[in-house]
Amino acid sequence: AGLSSAPCPVGPRFSSDASKVVPRGPGLTRAFSGQKNNFTVDCSNAGTNMLLVGVHGPHTPCEEVYVKHTGNRHYSVTYTVKERGDYVMIVKWGDDHVPGSPFHVTVP
Amino acid sequence: AGLSSAPCPVGPRFSSDASKVVPRGPGLTRAFSGQKNNFTVDCSNAGTNMLLVGVHGPHTPCEEVYVKHTGNRHYSVTYTVKERGDYVMIVKWGDDHVPGSPFHVTVP
Repeated sequence: AGLSSAPCPVGPRFSSDASKVVPRGPGLTRAFSGQKNNFTVDCSNAGTNMLLVGVHGPHTPCEEVYVKHTGNRHYSVTYTVKERGDYVMIVKWGDDHVPGSPFHVTVP
Repeated sequence: AGLSSAPCPVGPRFSSDASKVVPRGPGLTRAFSGQKNNFTVDCSNAGTNMLLVGVHGPHTPCEEVYVKHTGNRHYSVTYTVKERGDYVMIVKWGDDHVPGSPFHVTVP
């Protein structure tokens, strides 16, 4: 679906399979204001692509999102929030959602 | 195109227009190994959505991508690279590319 909807080639041709991405960690479901919330994303078996992460709160965007490549297409993601309530978090491997995305994150 | 291809509602309904997003800064075209590369993204006239940024080098992913919301849907993006060569950088406002994306970034 991702490739067929792309309007034009996007630089390097990526060959990837988002269904093989494995996201893990508490930050996929719960987050806390005033601290760093974390999860990891293992893309080592998912071919070549880019990881994209977006987080949005009930009314305002996430304060900060930090994505670090820790080697061999493993990523560590840290984000901070201010607002309480229900967040939606999108994690994509290129054009395609990874398994479980969009995630619904609660900030108590 | 973005909405029609979405398999299901993604939490809050966003009403947005990626064509109204204004990215600015040297980091959209050039980056340097061993330093922080920056650009800003002004989404203040583009409705409600999430900013997603992905960067990939000739062979390996970008080392780090940091997206900070600086208020009123203005964002500061900082990223670091290790590898020289031609990078592709995707900046999306929700499902849609912002003007100029995908960006082609050279690391001399």
